[in-house]
Amino acid sequence: MDGRRVYFVPNKMLNQDLAAHTASQLDLESRLYKQLALRISELVEHGTLRPGERVPSVRKCSAQQDVSVATVMQAYRLLESRGIIEARPQSGYYVKARRWSPPPEPAMTKPAPRAVKVRVSDLVLQVIKACRDPGVVKLGATFPSPELFPTWQLSRTTAAVGRRYPAAAQSYDPPPGNSALRLQVARRAMEAGCTLAPDDIITTFGATEALNLCLRAVAKPGDVIAIESPTFFGILQIIQSLGMRVCEIPTFPRHGVCLDELEARLKSCRIKACLFTLNFSNPLGSCMPDEKKKRLVKMLAERQIPLIEDDLSGNLAFGEKRPKAAKAFDQDGLVLMCDSFSKTLSPGYRVGWVAPGRFRERIEFLKFVNTSATASLTQMAVAEFLQNGGYDHHLRRIRRFYASHVERMTEAVSRYFPEGTRATRPAGGMCLWVELPSHVDSLAVYERAMASKISIAPGPLFSAKQKYRNFIRLNCGNPWSEAVEQAVKRLGEIIASS
Amino acid sequence: MDGRRVYFVPNKMLNQDLAAHTASQLDLESRLYKQLALRISELVEHGTLRPGERVPSVRKCSAQQDVSVATVMQAYRLLESRGIIEARPQSGYYVKARRWSPPPEPAMTKPAPRAVKVRVSDLVLQVIKACRDPGVVKLGATFPSPELFPTWQLSRTTAAVGRRYPAAAQSYDPPPGNSALRLQVARRAMEAGCTLAPDDIITTFGATEALNLCLRAVAKPGDVIAIESPTFFGILQIIQSLGMRVCEIPTFPRHGVCLDELEARLKSCRIKACLFTLNFSNPLGSCMPDEKKKRLVKMLAERQIPLIEDDLSGNLAFGEKRPKAAKAFDQDGLVLMCDSFSKTLSPGYRVGWVAPGRFRERIEFLKFVNTSATASLTQMAVAEFLQNGGYDHHLRRIRRFYASHVERMTEAVSRYFPEGTRATRPAGGMCLWVELPSHVDSLAVYERAMASKISIAPGPLFSAKQKYRNFIRLNCGNPWSEAVEQAVKRLGEIIASS
Repeated sequence: MDGRRVYFVPNKMLNQDLAAHTASQLDLESRLYKQLALRISELVEHGTLRPGERVPSVRKCSAQQDVSVATVMQAYRLLESRGIIEARPQSGYYVKARRWSPPPEPAMTKPAPRAVKVRVSDLVLQVIKACRDPGVVKLGATFPSPELFPTWQLSRTTAAVGRRYPAAAQSYDPPPGNSALRLQVARRAMEAGCTLAPDDIITTFGATEALNLCLRAVAKPGDVIAIESPTFFGILQIIQSLGMRVCEIPTFPRHGVCLDELEARLKSCRIKACLFTLNFSNPLGSCMPDEKKKRLVKMLAERQIPLIEDDLSGNLAFGEKRPKAAKAFDQDGLVLMCDSFSKTLSPGYRVGWVAPGRFRERIEFLKFVNTSATASLTQMAVAEFLQNGGYDHHLRRIRRFYASHVERMTEAVSRYFPEGTRATRPAGGMCLWVELPSHVDSLAVYERAMASKISIAPGPLFSAKQKYRNFIRLNCGNPWSEAVEQAVKRLGEIIASS
Repeated sequence: MDGRRVYFVPNKMLNQDLAAHTASQLDLESRLYKQLALRISELVEHGTLRPGERVPSVRKCSAQQDVSVATVMQAYRLLESRGIIEARPQSGYYVKARRWSPPPEPAMTKPAPRAVKVRVSDLVLQVIKACRDPGVVKLGATFPSPELFPTWQLSRTTAAVGRRYPAAAQSYDPPPGNSALRLQVARRAMEAGCTLAPDDIITTFGATEALNLCLRAVAKPGDVIAIESPTFFGILQIIQSLGMRVCEIPTFPRHGVCLDELEARLKSCRIKACLFTLNFSNPLGSCMPDEKKKRLVKMLAERQIPLIEDDLSGNLAFGEKRPKAAKAFDQDGLVLMCDSFSKTLSPGYRVGWVAPGRFRERIEFLKFVNTSATASLTQMAVAEFLQNGGYDHHLRRIRRFYASHVERMTEAVSRYFPEGTRATRPAGGMCLWVELPSHVDSLAVYERAMASKISIAPGPLFSAKQKYRNFIRLNCGNPWSEAVEQAVKRLGEIIASS
């Protein structure tokens, strides 16, 4: 307790006292709702109610405060008009306003304008493996905490499917994969603006396998792939393992790839394909506006260059509506869209998919050759859960969760990190990309943080040539706790003393 | 009913009649057991009891025939000494003798002695997909029938594991993979003569992924891989997809790769690695004697050439004891052993593994990059089943099943296929490789068979240059039925009229 917190206390006495007077009822109500509004705004100010958290429901507040429902409604509307809370349909009121100023944003990135071989740090596997050490605070790998997922329900669904169809669940189901799952995926792709038939989809072991297959379908060893800069180390590793080269494209921290720069690179480098995460890229959290996506798809179609779209985080928008996929604008079958359920439902089931457009036959061959088939039971379980398991409800919940945690992480960074720190403003996903003062070496910070049992992902992991030396990525996919708060504080100390 | 069959009929009357006489008891017993033995040998002769089938237990036969247990024992011992039945420990007596002559065996293969690019027929996916059409008799793809597997027990085990550890079952478990499964695999590898620690093993999505990772770990596009000729089309496809070339090595139908020829090729071709299925190769069913394996491993170690060992069928020996793996003789860490549970427990779970010797780090990286991780739930379920689910019992059952079906298929081929047909004599696995008269085109046979709703795998699928035009592979992994019998008969007609 920091002594600053204010709590709701029943003001029944005050209320009764006032009621006993013969003052105008209207006047009284007016004073009551303003009092209530002030009180709540103080709770927000002092951090008792934090950004992204739900304020008590109208009914609950009315009972707690012993005022009428109408008074609470008036108070909430006043707070809403002042930008302190916001209503979310069928969900209630949430704290909106930032009562602290976020760090400034990083500038557009400026990678070298030529094709380079990829060399990813060996640190990656260390960062990944740290996620299994129960003693480590996991701000490194972006594996969401199992607590976020409907594990019990999915377990039940899986058991039921296995009991109902034991032979099918254990039989080999060759590519394109389980038809019920492909139907569900096609239906859900409508939300991303895509018109897909089940037969347009091939299931895979996660988006990782999908990305591998797509790269192998459209390019050969030595070919150049255009990627965002910075980009997710997993993507860099895949490209490296396939012996391909990359051309890193300058990227805006909010809106993603700079299309003018891309256009210039298309002329100067022999780019064979693009691999972009347009919706909530990892690590930036950037989201390309739909109009820009349309321009991108057109620009590439004119040159007959395939676009591999990693839409893994597209469903993790913080707003009410998810952004469109570039696939929605694809008229030439040149967009290969990849996605999975690893970040929204079950990281361990390894169920993903690809809608490969005109490369369908080649991808089906490569899928067959790479892993023969996707596992039947897990596909059937995910299909069943998508159809009857309340996936939408769960998705809304997890999106709110990520939104509030990215906000909370930003606040902690703003509080604990030294002057000169910058941070992205993600509109979706689960990570925060933080620029440290220019003299700070994030690899040294990584070593010292690991000594304090804190895992982070240092910037050089996100570039083919190990740039971004003074950047780190923070995972916001775990429930907030005192341990996380203290870890961020400790990180701030490490950085300040660097 | 073909009118030739003879059935057991109680001979109580006869027995009583005889007993009423005062003839010597010893003489009577002697006549009885010889009568009984003669009767059973007739049942075998006429095909009522078929090779590989169990004869009634001693107790049951004693009750059926109303003779003493001692008499039955004596009769069975007589039949055993004549090679008509055989005793199997803790299982009973089985029909042993072939009452028909198997077709002669094919000769050693003679592929071209140079490195070639792989071109696999597009037919492969057709053959694979035919396995999903319920109207087709499945003699093509070697997917065992789900009826062979303990689907109910594995379903129950999976549900129990998911209920007990929902978070673990749905969480991401990075390479090397589930430790309980790796422990079980290491323990079982002892039967193949291998000394492995759990940490020597990396789990994969089936042997297919394992083989991909191994090839990528030891060779680059353009490199030459030595393979058996003929070889499983799945292996050819993997090599083709990776842009590698092959050198096909002459192979004996019973004992596999000819080591002298291999030695010559090692001098004439620049072989980067070998990929062999030493135990019950697909399609030959050949098994390299352990002494030859030892020589092979030594020969390659002297040249520092890695051996990728596909041991997928090693556990499917028809005899009592499984043969050793080449890995058992590996002293330099140059053998990369791949295996899975797809042919012995569950084709649909896609759980496999690799023991990559000195290439461990590279394989772990490639596994991480290819599919991130193996699915947690299915690994946990297989580990639990291996530990407590009666896997050994199941394995014995399935081995007997395959043995009897390969025998039965051979008999049917000998009965229905035209003069000039040859067939392998597999000692394990589930396929039969059949050489048709030299003028027969197996691709034409394939087309006509598919028109009759019979799927087969034509010979050209098993060679980099589509040789083996007058060969077919028959899958023996499905329960024998009138439909299968009729399908083989129809195949014989198609071939005879080719």
